[in-house]
Amino acid sequence: MTTATICTIGDEILIGQIVDTNSSAIARELNKIGVRVNRMISIGDDRQEIISRLKECLEESDIVISTGGLGPTKDDITKDALRELSGAKGYRLSKGQLVIIERILSARGIRMLETNQAQAMVPDTCEVLLNQLGTAPGMAFHDLGPNSSSLYSLPGVPFEAIGLLPTLMNDICDRFRTEDISHRTIVTFGIPESELACEIADIEDSLPSHIHLAYLPNPTVGVRLRFTSFEVHTDFEEQVAQLRERIGDAIYGEGEDTLPIAIGRLLKERKATVAAAESCTGGRISELMTAVAGCSEYYNGSVTSYANSVKTGTLGVNPETIAKHGAVSEECVREMAEGVLRKLGTDFSVATSGIAGPGGGSAEKPVGMAWLAAAHKESDGTVSVTTKCVKFSSNRSVNIERFASNALNLLRLKILQTPCV
Amino acid sequence: MTTATICTIGDEILIGQIVDTNSSAIARELNKIGVRVNRMISIGDDRQEIISRLKECLEESDIVISTGGLGPTKDDITKDALRELSGAKGYRLSKGQLVIIERILSARGIRMLETNQAQAMVPDTCEVLLNQLGTAPGMAFHDLGPNSSSLYSLPGVPFEAIGLLPTLMNDICDRFRTEDISHRTIVTFGIPESELACEIADIEDSLPSHIHLAYLPNPTVGVRLRFTSFEVHTDFEEQVAQLRERIGDAIYGEGEDTLPIAIGRLLKERKATVAAAESCTGGRISELMTAVAGCSEYYNGSVTSYANSVKTGTLGVNPETIAKHGAVSEECVREMAEGVLRKLGTDFSVATSGIAGPGGGSAEKPVGMAWLAAAHKESDGTVSVTTKCVKFSSNRSVNIERFASNALNLLRLKILQTPCV
Repeated sequence: MTTATICTIGDEILIGQIVDTNSSAIARELNKIGVRVNRMISIGDDRQEIISRLKECLEESDIVISTGGLGPTKDDITKDALRELSGAKGYRLSKGQLVIIERILSARGIRMLETNQAQAMVPDTCEVLLNQLGTAPGMAFHDLGPNSSSLYSLPGVPFEAIGLLPTLMNDICDRFRTEDISHRTIVTFGIPESELACEIADIEDSLPSHIHLAYLPNPTVGVRLRFTSFEVHTDFEEQVAQLRERIGDAIYGEGEDTLPIAIGRLLKERKATVAAAESCTGGRISELMTAVAGCSEYYNGSVTSYANSVKTGTLGVNPETIAKHGAVSEECVREMAEGVLRKLGTDFSVATSGIAGPGGGSAEKPVGMAWLAAAHKESDGTVSVTTKCVKFSSNRSVNIERFASNALNLLRLKILQTPCV
Repeated sequence: MTTATICTIGDEILIGQIVDTNSSAIARELNKIGVRVNRMISIGDDRQEIISRLKECLEESDIVISTGGLGPTKDDITKDALRELSGAKGYRLSKGQLVIIERILSARGIRMLETNQAQAMVPDTCEVLLNQLGTAPGMAFHDLGPNSSSLYSLPGVPFEAIGLLPTLMNDICDRFRTEDISHRTIVTFGIPESELACEIADIEDSLPSHIHLAYLPNPTVGVRLRFTSFEVHTDFEEQVAQLRERIGDAIYGEGEDTLPIAIGRLLKERKATVAAAESCTGGRISELMTAVAGCSEYYNGSVTSYANSVKTGTLGVNPETIAKHGAVSEECVREMAEGVLRKLGTDFSVATSGIAGPGGGSAEKPVGMAWLAAAHKESDGTVSVTTKCVKFSSNRSVNIERFASNALNLLRLKILQTPCV
């Protein structure tokens, strides 16, 4: 099996100033093409450390991918370390990258400085991976170390590094024996990982020996079920059909789908619109819905009704409902869902009211409890509402995230009950 | 200088399923007490790999901190690797952790299984760091390797690992020569890092030799300026006074302050309330405001007016304003701020309307442009509005984040103009 080591470079990582998200993004792509990651390391901006650690990495893996240390103020360190490591005699100009640098600077209205121009200079041993999103080019060095390994150097800025990954993975597939591998990922919500494992145990047990199933849980997305086959062009139709029969409505999509993406698709199929009324989720549902580009086609907006006066005033919740049952109640969340649907003139709506914590809990309504609702305006103008009570943890941010994703799933199931137009 | 290596353990890290946030959280705390992190590594759940890599770490640093691999299904691997590495003869029961495990399981209504009980068993060479937030205890092993280093093993669940850090840092301060170090962090917003560096260059240059200044930029928070002194009990009063004189209103707090925390403080001092009207930020401002526990004291809520019908209907924006100037205009965002202030009955408000992208841009109003507004209801009932136009990148999520933080800063400056009650 082809192996890789990921090495992220930067003092800002070692002092904890930034979280290294590049390593996991790279690892995910390597995993998809069947390259095994042996190890990840993070080191500082120190020339000798960079050289000696990268040498170690080249000894243990077929592929080494480094990120960082290529900014205009730092490239003297990392780039020169790569020059030495690769046995380059000197630097050459990447005309392609220079053109990109000129374009980027002129769009920002900045004039070209010497330090910017220097970013287009690369060791004469490397192949350039043009970085369209930033000034520092990616670089590929081949036939290094005792195993003739390849070393890829990417910029540290996450969206620039991620932008270069497709090029990188193509190059790896061309040069290395990657597994004859196929993937298919089914995305589910509503059944916890451990229960899901029980429920589909016999399907998993009866998989052919070349097919493997992995559970990838995430609080916002749900549980992704990823089939991997060590044969090319496996379509997994049989396995997916078995899953659909067993856990039906818990499946909402494939691949990189999220609940807001799936909901957007369902709404477009129905030419329908949606709005949100948020109390305990404080805007998180709206943020998730609007993270999807093009959501203005079906998403009208939301009201975050943190104060009870906004619940009664803007959303039209009956003050007596709150006086009698409290703001965290089935009755209140039902009126919130109805109110925002009528107020914002949508076909569907979703609403939340709960106690995110850390304060504000009671024996009857503890921290981590919330009422969720999803509403639909029927063709006769009446509004039908589905509600659900959930209980989670004592951690405020964990609660907000789970309240939001569970409310979105309730909305998804509500939309599913109505036919497409 | 005392040195440390951080080693996170788990196959889920190497396949990119999760982002390792523990390393940066630990590094940040070590940095505060003047311990230098040499390196971070992430390895898989493989017994021999765990032993050999941890041995390497013990050779290079005074302190090794590992996280992960202690769950009920995995502790046979990591814990037994630690037993072997530390030369333990066997296991002993941590009665303290057993009591915590019983409490946690009973609160969740789960009965104790053998696998849970096994989590309270630890190698007889370790000191237990009681984990109040989860079932797996932290462990400290001392006098290991050629340099008599210490190895700390923490659970992998981030909030459990973070919960043990105060205990861990105390133990490190007791056992190791940590630097006689003082810190003070000033938080700023509104001046980009490079400009800030120019503006305060002479202050930085004239710092006494034992005081060092670091710039820690973050798109949501702003630029943190951290003073470090290699003398104890430095209060940095003189340096902070110089900064205040130079960059005055750009400073909004200290330490872990964020814009929503600072805004909350200003509003409480004025016994005032606030609301938000969000278009391009889609709920992000509301989410940031409600991430602060206790925000219900001053935060009434928000309207996300994604559709123009919500801008005109719920917020009362004049349809002619949108017809004439467009939704992304100074005129529209001004009416949004006024509308949400009146509708939600608050003293202040903040509003955004812009083009987050990737689509929807034009030559006149490109992707990355937004109008921001902050409003205040004067004592005579009139509403004064301050507006600002900003231009950022082509990346949707980057734009949303910067629109939101810049709008919050505009709100902060607006509140600052009004006296405390």
